Amino acid sequence: MSNHIYKKLELIGSSGEGIEAAVQNALARAERTVRNMRWFEVTETRGHIENGKIDHWQVTLKVGFTLED
Amino acid sequence: MSNHIYKKLELIGSSGEGIEAAVQNALARAERTVRNMRWFEVTETRGHIENGKIDHWQVTLKVGFTLED
Amino acid sequence: MSNHIYKKLELIGSSGEGIEAAVQNALARAERTVRNMRWFEVTETRGHIENGKIDHWQVTLKVGFTLED
Amino acid sequence: MSNHIYKKLELIGSSGEGIEAAVQNALARAERTVRNMRWFEVTETRGHIENGKIDHWQVTLKVGFTLED
Amino acid sequence: MSNHIYKKLELIGSSGEGIEAAVQNALARAERTVRNMRWFEVTETRGHIENGKIDHWQVTLKVGFTLED
Amino acid sequence: MSNHIYKKLELIGSSGEGIEAAVQNALARAERTVRNMRWFEVTETRGHIENGKIDHWQVTLKVGFTLED
Amino acid sequence: MSNHIYKKLELIGSSGEGIEAAVQNALARAERTVRNMRWFEVTETRGHIENGKIDHWQVTLKVGFTLED
Amino acid sequence: MSNHIYKKLELIGSSGEGIEAAVQNALARAERTVRNMRWFEVTETRGHIENGKIDHWQVTLKVGFTLED
Amino acid sequence: MSNHIYKKLELIGSSGEGIEAAVQNALARAERTVRNMRWFEVTETRGHIENGKIDHWQVTLKVGFTLED
Amino acid sequence: MSNHIYKKLELIGSSGEGIEAAVQNALARAERTVRNMRWFEVTETRGHIENGKIDHWQVTLKVGFTLED
Amino acid sequence: MSNHIYKKLELIGSSGEGIEAAVQNALARAERTVRNMRWFEVTETRGHIENGKIDHWQVTLKVGFTLED
Amino acid sequence: MSNHIYKKLELIGSSGEGIEAAVQNALARAERTVRNMRWFEVTETRGHIENGKIDHWQVTLKVGFTLED
Repeated sequence: MSNHIYKKLELIGSSGEGIEAAVQNALARAERTVRNMRWFEVTETRGHIENGKIDHWQVTLKVGFTLED
Repeated sequence: MSNHIYKKLELIGSSGEGIEAAVQNALARAERTVRNMRWFEVTETRGHIENGKIDHWQVTLKVGFTLED
Repeated sequence: MSNHIYKKLELIGSSGEGIEAAVQNALARAERTVRNMRWFEVTETRGHIENGKIDHWQVTLKVGFTLED
Repeated sequence: MSNHIYKKLELIGSSGEGIEAAVQNALARAERTVRNMRWFEVTETRGHIENGKIDHWQVTLKVGFTLED
Repeated sequence: MSNHIYKKLELIGSSGEGIEAAVQNALARAERTVRNMRWFEVTETRGHIENGKIDHWQVTLKVGFTLED
Repeated sequence: MSNHIYKKLELIGSSGEGIEAAVQNALARAERTVRNMRWFEVTETRGHIENGKIDHWQVTLKVGFTLED
Repeated sequence: MSNHIYKKLELIGSSGEGIEAAVQNALARAERTVRNMRWFEVTETRGHIENGKIDHWQVTLKVGFTLED
Repeated sequence: MSNHIYKKLELIGSSGEGIEAAVQNALARAERTVRNMRWFEVTETRGHIENGKIDHWQVTLKVGFTLED
Repeated sequence: MSNHIYKKLELIGSSGEGIEAAVQNALARAERTVRNMRWFEVTETRGHIENGKIDHWQVTLKVGFTLED
Repeated sequence: MSNHIYKKLELIGSSGEGIEAAVQNALARAERTVRNMRWFEVTETRGHIENGKIDHWQVTLKVGFTLED
Repeated sequence: MSNHIYKKLELIGSSGEGIEAAVQNALARAERTVRNMRWFEVTETRGHIENGKIDHWQVTLKVGFTLED
Repeated sequence: MSNHIYKKLELIGSSGEGIEAAVQNALARAERTVRNMRWFEVTETRGHIENGKIDHWQVTLKVGFTLED
């Protein structure tokens, strides 16, 4: 693993269900154009409120992926 | 949306279930006295332990709400 | 409670299910050797990705426990 | 001045013009209900974009005001 | 304790004596209007100088109090 | 809005006029290749000095844009 | 001094008197099991409130001690 | 440029007009005694309020200048 | 007050007594060469340990003073 | 230089030798696809351990490059 | 890897040579009592000066190691 | 050591070789005018790039020196 170079993307995923689903939604969308995603880090957790209830979560994450030789 | 002025409240919600429920509990209580809540940001995630297990989660959040003209 | 002295441990728990389970797994393992755990604080939330999906979550937490007199 | 106790409010002001106007708009709205505002600190500067241009600025500020004896 | 919802206030207390007295002064003033204060966190410690000596301390604190059901 | 996935770019804009113009210049350049920019956050404000005067401002911002389905 | 390796502990001490006593109480308890403590850093200052007064202070500190050859 | 050594000063400038003018005022005053100022970084933006309006801005900046050989 | 330009110094004071005395010692020493000191901010609180007891406190502070016209 | 707009990339380089080589490896790989790289900032320094020894360093950096007109 | 629980230690290593050697010295000492060290993160880089020259480097690191089942 | 008062300087050193040399260059230049430098802390590590290679490192450090009685 010592020869890999990684690049990081910053994404925001959303979901009406919760934090885990918001992260998975962001990864599902990113996977269409980014290969070799390896890990993520959650950097911010927010949400929108409608009528006093959580309408959807918005989770910011950084995703690391390998730049292949 | 450009004419709104918002105010932020800082709350701590708790729940035996998990992070999402702790946030929802805080919002449910705040809704009794605060109108027009729009979004929240999670700023701290903690919990209490009883006998080596999570007894309840305590989630600190800031809530933004509109100050109407 | 005013006479207690606490010590903090830093742990990383992991789980394929989600954030709450990763914390609980870390506490379950720590409980074998640490008595009197009282609270935890989540300090970092990360995860590993396999084939564009979350493979497992890795949650860093600090755990406070009582040093008994 | 050494006997004053202050309280802080957190507000978000917005303006199509710029940062200074967004702060002034937040203060103008707060002044209707808060007396004795003394100073502010800008904690976040954001903005919304429409068609590639800044539509309006959103500035978060903390406002300190005196709690009178 | 798991069912409580807390709210946080941000205050600045001052005292010519020292940090502890500045915190106590802030709490004494807040107690007139806020019931059920439970804990505080010091977030900033400053002071004013007159003729090369500390004239008074100014301590910023967040105070958590219970929102009763 | 709950189904959108956003990506963030980090840009630095510059201007001899001031902070607002530096942000607008960065957005004007980014708009040539990035569609659907929605908001920005200022993360750093710097400037270059010539002969004791501000020669130009350099403002770092993160820009969020929609990844369309 | 250039050959020493240090390890850090994280402790929380409490006292009804003030910040300095809370630190000293933490060190007094740690000294029973940790030899060669050299310095500390205060990382968090909190307290509990009873009836609008400070009941006790809780001070978090990191303590550095020498790992002897 | 690779052989220069820089030193940083921390200044606070003020202005009734706005952020840019507060920075320029700080630089104008510093230029009397500091040669070869090259860049600045804004680290804090605050202001004083009179009668619900911004009376003046106070901007903290770090200024880098060359130590000549 | 709106026309003043301030400069900040960073000092570390020490004392065997406590935090307040360490700050006062730093100011007493600085006053010999710096005129017009106006305020300070505590940025770090540390201490040295001898035989399991606090030997002396070391408090880092920033001091603001006026640059007179 | 006042008319340039910059974009930042976030990369992680690795090397068995040390920090400087890890940065250089990241830049060497990025140079294949990114023109006009101008500066970098190290934001995180980590490493992997094998048998109690550093196996390789992993250094996170942000790279600024010019967006040409 | 998804079933491992990790614990983190905080260490300070020193060396007259440089940053990399200070980290390696800390790991070499820790290895005598800690098994299964996996990674480290550098959190602080300092040094002592004698006669205007670097006498030795002091590097603070967190070390993650596996708690085996 | 308990009676010393320290002052901190903020410097930026540069070197084509690496981080350690950049720090040493800053100290060598500062030593001409500052006596009794005791320690430094690295606060920022950056560098300039020419043709895809590191041209020189720029390391920001704070230097503590004794104010003698």
